This record gives sequence, C-alpha cells and structure tokens, in this order.
Amino acid sequence: MAQIGFIGLGSMGRPMAEHLVRAGHDVVVWNRSRDKAQPLAAMGARVADSLGEAVPPEGVVITMLADDTALEHVCRAQWGVLARLGGGLHVSMSTVRPETARTLAEAHAEAGARYLAAPVFGRPDMAEAGKLIVCLSGATADKDAARPVLQAFAGGFYDYGETDVAAANVVKLAGNFMLAAAMEAMGEAYTFAEHQGIDREQLNRMLTETLFACPAYANYGTPIAKHNYEPAGFKLNLGLKDLRLVRHAADANGVPMPLADLVFRRLETLNAQGHGHIDWAGIGRGASDDAGD
Amino acid sequence: MAQIGFIGLGSMGRPMAEHLVRAGHDVVVWNRSRDKAQPLAAMGARVADSLGEAVPPEGVVITMLADDTALEHVCRAQWGVLARLGGGLHVSMSTVRPETARTLAEAHAEAGARYLAAPVFGRPDMAEAGKLIVCLSGATADKDAARPVLQAFAGGFYDYGETDVAAANVVKLAGNFMLAAAMEAMGEAYTFAEHQGIDREQLNRMLTETLFACPAYANYGTPIAKHNYEPAGFKLNLGLKDLRLVRHAADANGVPMPLADLVFRRLETLNAQGHGHIDWAGIGRGASDDAGD
Amino acid sequence: MAQIGFIGLGSMGRPMAEHLVRAGHDVVVWNRSRDKAQPLAAMGARVADSLGEAVPPEGVVITMLADDTALEHVCRAQWGVLARLGGGLHVSMSTVRPETARTLAEAHAEAGARYLAAPVFGRPDMAEAGKLIVCLSGATADKDAARPVLQAFAGGFYDYGETDVAAANVVKLAGNFMLAAAMEAMGEAYTFAEHQGIDREQLNRMLTETLFACPAYANYGTPIAKHNYEPAGFKLNLGLKDLRLVRHAADANGVPMPLADLVFRRLETLNAQGHGHIDWAGIGRGASDDAGD
Amino acid sequence: MAQIGFIGLGSMGRPMAEHLVRAGHDVVVWNRSRDKAQPLAAMGARVADSLGEAVPPEGVVITMLADDTALEHVCRAQWGVLARLGGGLHVSMSTVRPETARTLAEAHAEAGARYLAAPVFGRPDMAEAGKLIVCLSGATADKDAARPVLQAFAGGFYDYGETDVAAANVVKLAGNFMLAAAMEAMGEAYTFAEHQGIDREQLNRMLTETLFACPAYANYGTPIAKHNYEPAGFKLNLGLKDLRLVRHAADANGVPMPLADLVFRRLETLNAQGHGHIDWAGIGRGASDDAGD
Repeated sequence: MAQIGFIGLGSMGRPMAEHLVRAGHDVVVWNRSRDKAQPLAAMGARVADSLGEAVPPEGVVITMLADDTALEHVCRAQWGVLARLGGGLHVSMSTVRPETARTLAEAHAEAGARYLAAPVFGRPDMAEAGKLIVCLSGATADKDAARPVLQAFAGGFYDYGETDVAAANVVKLAGNFMLAAAMEAMGEAYTFAEHQGIDREQLNRMLTETLFACPAYANYGTPIAKHNYEPAGFKLNLGLKDLRLVRHAADANGVPMPLADLVFRRLETLNAQGHGHIDWAGIGRGASDDAGD
Repeated sequence: MAQIGFIGLGSMGRPMAEHLVRAGHDVVVWNRSRDKAQPLAAMGARVADSLGEAVPPEGVVITMLADDTALEHVCRAQWGVLARLGGGLHVSMSTVRPETARTLAEAHAEAGARYLAAPVFGRPDMAEAGKLIVCLSGATADKDAARPVLQAFAGGFYDYGETDVAAANVVKLAGNFMLAAAMEAMGEAYTFAEHQGIDREQLNRMLTETLFACPAYANYGTPIAKHNYEPAGFKLNLGLKDLRLVRHAADANGVPMPLADLVFRRLETLNAQGHGHIDWAGIGRGASDDAGD
Repeated sequence: MAQIGFIGLGSMGRPMAEHLVRAGHDVVVWNRSRDKAQPLAAMGARVADSLGEAVPPEGVVITMLADDTALEHVCRAQWGVLARLGGGLHVSMSTVRPETARTLAEAHAEAGARYLAAPVFGRPDMAEAGKLIVCLSGATADKDAARPVLQAFAGGFYDYGETDVAAANVVKLAGNFMLAAAMEAMGEAYTFAEHQGIDREQLNRMLTETLFACPAYANYGTPIAKHNYEPAGFKLNLGLKDLRLVRHAADANGVPMPLADLVFRRLETLNAQGHGHIDWAGIGRGASDDAGD
Repeated sequence: MAQIGFIGLGSMGRPMAEHLVRAGHDVVVWNRSRDKAQPLAAMGARVADSLGEAVPPEGVVITMLADDTALEHVCRAQWGVLARLGGGLHVSMSTVRPETARTLAEAHAEAGARYLAAPVFGRPDMAEAGKLIVCLSGATADKDAARPVLQAFAGGFYDYGETDVAAANVVKLAGNFMLAAAMEAMGEAYTFAEHQGIDREQLNRMLTETLFACPAYANYGTPIAKHNYEPAGFKLNLGLKDLRLVRHAADANGVPMPLADLVFRRLETLNAQGHGHIDWAGIGRGASDDAGD
C-alpha cells in the first residue's frame, strides 16, 4: 500500500492521522514540534525527521495546519510539498483563504502536482469519533483518489464541484461564520433570560431538545449556558482568524455582513482582553460582560 | 365533559381548536371575524355569537391572539374573560410582554380567576400536526389542569416554575429572538457563498443535514436559500412586534443585545419598505438587498 | 414685576435660576432636596416650602427636571402645576419624551393653563455663562411671553412652530443623539490612532482646530482624549435615559437607527459595569475597553 | 528655481498644481489621462509626455493619486519615481495604507531618495481656495524642504513626528472615519426628526449654527438635509476605499470599531446598489432608505 504523508498534528490532525494508521495505511507524520508525534509513533506510524520526509513523491500528502502562513510554508519550503510531491496529490484540509487555495492550486499545477481542497467540519471529539464532515472541491479524479483515504475519519462528504478549487474553502468559512453567529445568539438569549429569572441551563436544554436539536447548538449550548470555556477544543484566537477570513472574503466580494462584523468584534475584544486561549464558545460570555454580570 | 372556550382562530389558533374538537372536547370558539370559525363549526364546534359566550364560567378558556392589545381587550372587555370566567382557568398562549402576563395574572387573581402562561413554539404546520412545544409558567395546580387539555395539540411541555407567571413568556421571546438570529445568519452566509459561486440551496442542504440539522434551520433554510417568502406562515410584521418585545424587555432588564438590535432593524426596514405581509423568514433577504442583488 | 416660579435646581437649573435673579426677576424656587436652594436664597430668591408655593397662579413657572417621571409628578401632584397655575404659563425645559409633552400640553389646556416646550442645548458651563440654546415649540403668544424671561440665560432661540407642541423635544433628542454619536466616533478614532503610535491629545487638537472646530467636539474631545470623565457635567445614566427616549421615538416612527442603537448599548454597558455616575463622555472609553487598553 | 514634478491631476491635484504654478514654481505635471493637464498647460505648466519626465532628478515630486495601487505604480514603474528621483524628495499626499507608506519609504531609502508623508484634509473647494490642512510625518529636514512648496495651497500644517513615516496617514484615516461617522449621525438624526414632522433643513441649520458649527457638519449637512449628492466632490467609491483602509488598519492593530464597520457597510451597500459615483455624503441617504422613504 502506498505511503501517506500527514502534516500537522494538532487537536484535529492527531486523531485524523490515528484513524489512518488504524485503517491500515502506511503513514508518515510530521509536526513542527516533534513531541506531538509520539502517540502516533506508538501506534506504528513513522515519524519523519524533516518536513520533506513526510511528502511521499508521487504519493498522497494530507495537511491539517493552523493557518495560511503555516500552509504556505509547508508548500513552499525548500524540501516542502511543491519541491517533493512530483505528480502526487496534496489533500489540503486546513481552513484557509479561498485565494490561498487558488494560488496554491496553480503553484501545484505548475510543479506538476495536484491540489484538492478538503476542509472539514467537526471538533476534536468528532475527529476522534471519525465522523468529520469533509467538503471537497477540485478535480473529480483527485476526489476519487482521496475519498478512500479520507473515509478513515469522515462521516460524510460534500462535493462543491470542479470549477473553483476554493469552493470548499468558501463553504467552510460560511459554516464557521454560522457557528459563531449561533454562539452569539445563545450568549444574548441566555443572558436576556437569566436577567429575568430563568435558569440558563434549563433554557438551553429546552432549545437543544426542540427547535435547535442539532450539533451546532448541542455542542456549544452547554458551555455557553455554564460559561465553561476551558479547556479549548478550538481556540478563540483561531476563531478570530477564521472570522477575519470571512470579513476579508465578504469585502472582496461586495457582501455587507453586519452579523459577521459583530461576532468578529466579539472575538477581537475577548482576544484583546486576554482570552485568546479559551474555546471560541467564549463568544457567549460577551453578552454577560456587556450586561455587567 | 366540561366545555372549553377557544378565542382566536388565526393560522395557529384554528388548527389548535380543531385538535381539541377531534379529541372529543366540547368546544365553543370565538373569533373577531366570524368567517374563520366556519371550518370549526363544520367539525362540530359551537360558534359563539359574542366574546362572552366563549368564556365558560368556572371552566377553561384558551386564548391565542395576535398581540398584547388583543389579549388585553379579550380579558377586560365588558363581557370578557375577567367578567365571565368566575373561578375558572385562563390558558393564555399568545406571545405577549412578560409584564402583560404579570398584570393580567394579578387582575385574574383579583377577579377570583386563574391565569396560566402557555406560549408555544411551532409554526402552523406544527399546529396542524399537533406537535407544538408548550412552555408553562404559573401555579402547579393550573398546569395539572391544563395539560390534559393541551395535549390534544402538544408535542411536549416545558415547565418554568411557579415563581414568575411570566417566565414562559420570557422563554418564548428568547426563542423567537434565536430564530430571527438564525435567519439573519443564513441570509448573510448564503449571500456570502453565492457571491463566490456557491449554489445557495446546495449550501443549505449540507448545513441542514449536518451541523444545523434541526427544525429551526430546516424550516427556514429552504425559503431563505430560494428567497421564497410567500405565503407567510408567520408574518414579518408579527415578527417585528416580537422583536420589539425582546428589545423592550432587554432594555428594562439591563441586557445589551446587539444581535437583537440587528434583526429588529432588518424587520423594521423590510416592513417600512412594504414587506410586512411576507413570512418573517424574509429577514433572509436583507443581506441580498444590501449586496445589491 | 410678576413672580416667576422655578422648579428643579440641578446642575443646569441652579445657574439658570441664578440668572433670573440677577436679571431682576422676583423668583421663587423649589427643589426636591431643599439644600440645593441655599445658593439661590443667598442671592435673594425666595425658597418655597412646598412645590405648590413655587407655582405662581396666573404667572410663569419654569421646570428643569431630570426625567419624564419627575415632570409628570410636578405637574400632577396635588398642589402641583396643573392644580395651581390657573391661566398661567408653564415653560417646560426638561428633556422628555415627545409624547409626554403632548399629553401634558393637553392636560394644561384642559386645566385652562398654557404649556410651552423649551428644551435647551448646553452643559452646565453654558448655563453658568447664560449662553444656552433654547428650542421652542407651542403657541406663538406663549413664546412671546417666554422669551423676555428666558433671555436671562439664553444665547439663542430656535422656533419649531405651533403645530406640534413636542417639536422642540424631538429636536432635543436628535441633538443629544448626535452628541453621543460624535463621542463614539472620537472614542474609536483616538483609540485607532493611539494603537498606531499617535498621541490622543495631539490628534484631538488638530481635529478640533480644523474640521471639527465646534462646541460638540471641543467640549467632549479633551475628556475623551484624556479619558477624564469626572466630575460629571451630565451623568452617563441621564444620557442613557435620553438615548432610550431616542430609541423609543425612532421605533414608534419607523426609523431604524443603527448608530443610536450602538451608542445606547455603549451607555447601557458602561452603566451596567458601574459607571452610571461619570460624565456621559465616558462613551469614549468604550472603544478603549474593547481594545483591551 | 528648481523644477517641481506634480503627478495626479484629479479634482484635488489639479487645483493644488495650479496654486504651485501661480506661486511662481516651475511645474511639470503628469496625469494618466492627458486631457486633465490642459488647464495647467494653459497656465504655463509644462506637461510631461511620460511619467518619468515629471520626476525631476534630485528635485521634488508631489503625488496626489487615487489609491495605493496607483501610488505603487507611479513609484515602481520602469521610469517612475524610484528609478528617476535620485536623492530628491517625494512628497506623497494621497490617502493610502500606513503600510504602503512604510514600505515605500524603505524603498525610497534603498534607492537613495527621500519620502515624506503629507496627506491632506479638505475637499476640492478647499484645494481651490488654497486652504488644505496638511499632515506631515517623516524626517524633519524633509518637512523643512517641503513646507515652502506646499504653502502654495496649504491653510495649515500639523506635524506627526519623525518616528513613523506613516503617522500622518494614520491621522488621515482617523479623520476620514470621523467625517463618515458625522454623516451617518446626520442621516439618522434628520430622518428621525423628519418622521416626526421636523423640516430637515431647519434642523440642520440650527445644529450647524450651534453645537456643530464646524466645516465637517457645515460641508456635509446641507447635502444630507436636501439629499443632494451630485455632482460628487469626493466619490462614494473612494470613501469606501478609505473606510476599507480604516478597517484593515484597525484589525491589524487590534481595535474593534463598530461605528467604522457601520459606515463601511453603508458605503458598501450604496456602492453595490449602483451609487458609487455620487458624493460620499450619500452615506446620509442610508437612514432614509432603511426607513422606506
């Protein structure tokens, strides 16, 4: 079986790579700080000594990184993806700017390699459970090649066509915006009710059993009802980065988004006040702060 | 079996009353415009010739009216609920100000009658299906008396205690705010994606199958994806009224709610521009209007 | 010379009444807490022992009170303005709801008395200097009667007609909203510049010498540049009240005002966080708080 | 007398260059579309046949261009400022990103040239009148060299030090934001009053004679009171560009600016709805649009 490279072993990447190992793939992993690779080594993955070793020539490499800068680096470094991959396939799963995806796809084509956008929805617990929702955009042949690999940790695939390699990245940004908006709504609603004598958790329970009985509200409702934001599943300062990408793309495409502006400022304020490391559900404490609670 | 009065036969009240008839209750109905009562007459309900006839002395009367003014009138009219009900029970299901509930509960107590707040979540199709979510606040004995009646059209009950008779009304306002917030989020997200080449319905399908697989998004997502807001299940100008109640209660309780302000202005603008009669999911066209679509 | 009653000796009312005494009028003053009347007694004003004594039958009474409730009380109390004034003239200078002005004007007419709306622009230092801007609405004859009295402390008069007795109150609310908006703009602009190495006071100096060389910016710019909000010339919780009146009137008249909503929430948050007693220029610290300064 | 190059003859640049000619300077002008140079040729200025001819080696070149892209081009073109200026001085008066100023200043230093940031406040009529407010940042020696030239059209100078060459650009962005904020406030206040029966122009007159008696409100108040936005002194789509720069710098420096977001969206919406060519005072019609007027 062909070797699969996996780069980026954060709270999402690590369980994803573990699923690949468990599914029987020959996996070589790399992470900037090597200690994060130990659990994978213990499971039988090979730990690369350098970035380049984790890029199998003519093979498949998967990246799951924190931001555009990290992804650009991994692609363009001297022994990075573009230099090493040959005619292989890069499955790029990080949340990045659509423009970054487009530019990198071109750079891959020029280098003879293939780039598939495959950002995911799901928090670390969904990654552990192998139930991530994977959004795909790029060449059909690349999707066909990627699905059998990605199914090791995927709960479902959604295909956004071949026309725009960044389409899945746009969808990912839209979804993250909607999550942030849902958290803001909960933060305001629960504080509104609390100030009128209603128990936050009791209100949350009703809503998440009825109108809002879905993962977005179920996952974030209890932390917001309890103001319990640590440890972080997804850090607030990464959420701030994502909303920044939303604002940037909205501006570039002429779409005024007052609610995106609102949640962006919530994140920006919480980050400025020293809360960048808590879970981004911390959006939900903004309304309480404003109400002087 | 004791007679039950039912006052208010709008798009919610009519199917609710029909369920009561079907469940075998002896129902007397009244509506300001009498023609709305015809379907119920055909099913065997008695149609009152006057408001007072629909208030059974010492019995149970259910009200489902458009706003505070209508409810106040029905209670305080010369032959209205307060004048006629005696020691009976008024199950008040309209969306009204918490203060209105408190004031009316006191007035009922002074008149020797009982007032139970029982606002519901669910659109007309949920009323037809007998699956409304009923929120209750008031005396335990009154809830025990009401449940066997209300179960004719209820899919579930949530109890918000005895301390504040208006607690269920607060919860109802919180929930309606969250629905409006969800619609604003969809309106912005779908327009954001559309301007970048993504099909609105395809995006909506993915989101409502995964992160947002719940009634709030399922009900409102398709109309917003298609910009299809007529006929109205719940009119925009009624949604505007509800958000006005939210703003009023938020202000009275010292809770700044920027997202409530935002959706209130959306509704206010759409109403001012002549769209008060479309469904309140029309919130979702605001982002498209702003983007010049 | 006919006696003039003056009711309400706060930081605005006291210097206004003093100007009347200095101009030679026979002035009788009343204030809820009597100690505030001492300086006026020392200047020769008569201090009323009761509210009623400060309302000269068939004469002129001026009121300068904190809010609608205080004005309503002074008018409707057993020995208040309506009971005592006869055919006299009430010059009502407080910032109140337009509806309050309309309702009180009707109540005066029914009692045979006259009501003139005369709210003012200007802070306590302008009152001390006798330079207040007075906005008038009501009957022409009443304005002609009032001007010779009011000129003791007025720097200018603006007439808003006879049609709507509350027109001047609407103008007053519009002006106070614009002041709050200017403060929010300064707060954001100075913080924006400060984070990029610009001295706040230096920026304020340039702006208030050039584009914004006018009282609104000159008065509030330095406190905001220095974050110096005590002692208060006009308390933040009174500004909150005024913006509440703006929101209420905007809603009642179908005018969405996102900037009014924004400054209202600033004031609401600062008040909730315990700053209700500082000057309302404290709006200008909101941006710094949000930026984590 | 040394020759002065002047590049960019829009509605601001043309009158500025004319003042230089009138003051007796030997001026060579260049504009992308040559016809705009005719009035200057008629006054005695030399019209360059190419960009490079308008950059006097070892001399002074002034640029007044529409945006960052145009300035970058003029600097970096094959025969542009950097290639031709030698040890001369570039007085850069356009409204551009602070980062652009910093980057260009470095590029000038590397090329042996000098870069002075000198953005201005004032509309075309102020340029015609020679009363522009000039903000300076950069080396003291460069300011000393520039002032005698710039005084041909300057009404005042403000110095923002030597430390950050972009300080004046930051100040310019802060000022433009404050202008936009003032326009939004007027738009909302006048619509608020109008809906309650007050004449917009009468309200504007009072405010601009009293609290807001300063150029910002005097210039923009009458157009907004009358909804008279053509012809444009400064186009709405350029204002949109400026507010985009404000948002970008605010984000880069961690300063949440809700009011900047609000006016940015106003401009974005008006631009998307086809009004990019009207004066940016058109911000003032946003509130009327929202109110359905």
